[in-house]
Amino acid sequence: MTAESTTPDAYQPTDRTVPTRSRERASYDRELVHSILDEGYVCHLGFVRDGGPVVLPTLYARVGERLYVHGSTGSRPLRMASGAEDPGMPVCLTVTHVDGLVLARSAFHHSINYRSVVVHGAARQVTDGAERAAALDALVDHVVPGRAADSRPANAKELAATAVLRLDLAEVSAKIRTGGPNDEPEDLALPHWSGVLPVARTYGTPVPSDDLTADTPVPAYLTRL
Amino acid sequence: MTAESTTPDAYQPTDRTVPTRSRERASYDRELVHSILDEGYVCHLGFVRDGGPVVLPTLYARVGERLYVHGSTGSRPLRMASGAEDPGMPVCLTVTHVDGLVLARSAFHHSINYRSVVVHGAARQVTDGAERAAALDALVDHVVPGRAADSRPANAKELAATAVLRLDLAEVSAKIRTGGPNDEPEDLALPHWSGVLPVARTYGTPVPSDDLTADTPVPAYLTRL
Repeated sequence: MTAESTTPDAYQPTDRTVPTRSRERASYDRELVHSILDEGYVCHLGFVRDGGPVVLPTLYARVGERLYVHGSTGSRPLRMASGAEDPGMPVCLTVTHVDGLVLARSAFHHSINYRSVVVHGAARQVTDGAERAAALDALVDHVVPGRAADSRPANAKELAATAVLRLDLAEVSAKIRTGGPNDEPEDLALPHWSGVLPVARTYGTPVPSDDLTADTPVPAYLTRL
Repeated sequence: MTAESTTPDAYQPTDRTVPTRSRERASYDRELVHSILDEGYVCHLGFVRDGGPVVLPTLYARVGERLYVHGSTGSRPLRMASGAEDPGMPVCLTVTHVDGLVLARSAFHHSINYRSVVVHGAARQVTDGAERAAALDALVDHVVPGRAADSRPANAKELAATAVLRLDLAEVSAKIRTGGPNDEPEDLALPHWSGVLPVARTYGTPVPSDDLTADTPVPAYLTRL
């Protein structure tokens, strides 16, 4: 990474993205952040309303160094975010994957193996038509890669009812815990089982709609999942 | 449910817990809220720092009508929450389970089947020793039921390093989406597959610590998961 690089390998840490503890778990590596973001599709979006915090689950997608979320133009958080020229709505967008339950001999050292990304920034309404269309495709494809091309695109009425927010990836950090429990040396002789119980997200068998034509094949992009 | 009931079946809706849209998905049913909370163990905790939102993943446990989260006494959110006599720190605690990916014929009607709970309130540090100990047990047992009794309890030094926050369940709502896609009638003849891809959390084979005595059996409370 050189000072001239336009796409440095890491995000610049800020006061908000440097944790007060377990700093060894924090990372600003761009590729790592992207991989964590791309593996999920539900984020928890935080904003401030009437001085108090609000955290809502919502779908997101990444396109390069931008995250997109969408919703009804009538929903409160989306009404609060203003246009592209305005300062935007301060948000904190967090994505978390749980990879394992960490069982130590001591209650104190129990933990979770996880990978999370926290993004701070200002969310702005996307008003450009082409960017909006690309963002909506990305939102579908982020959940089921390949699906956007295999569905009816939004029509004018649907587009008008949908607000798209953009959040640039600038103030970003990842936090990761891996490995087994960190038991105290004096606890190692205790009789309790210790180790990790892996946790994963799995997909079941696709359930067709009641009104689906009987011979419609399950698409390959679904069986791949 | 009668007006005299001391434990009504539902939480009282407030301006913050009534959504502006998809109100039919909202519920205030106490038993439903409890079941969603009890199925998870990682929440996203939102609070306001320097006027901006912060959302962090953290473990939680429910004991009756109280939620507990814990952390290092040195962590920022836990330092911000004051003692039991103080007004506490305004938080929004959200728990989300993803149950399925909903694929409609139209991009617009794609959705997620999910169950979420949003709790608004003030988080306060728990200072009572017995309540702290019970909360820490609950935090371990919420992740792996039965584990608290099969581990070394926290000693005085560990207890002193751990902050426990309490959030009462009062301003609470659940939001649920189930079922298949809601396609437009005019889209039903389109050739795209439509239906639901179920999503679930699964556990892998327990991985013992490298330093675990070879003949330590995997406890029944783990194989049950």
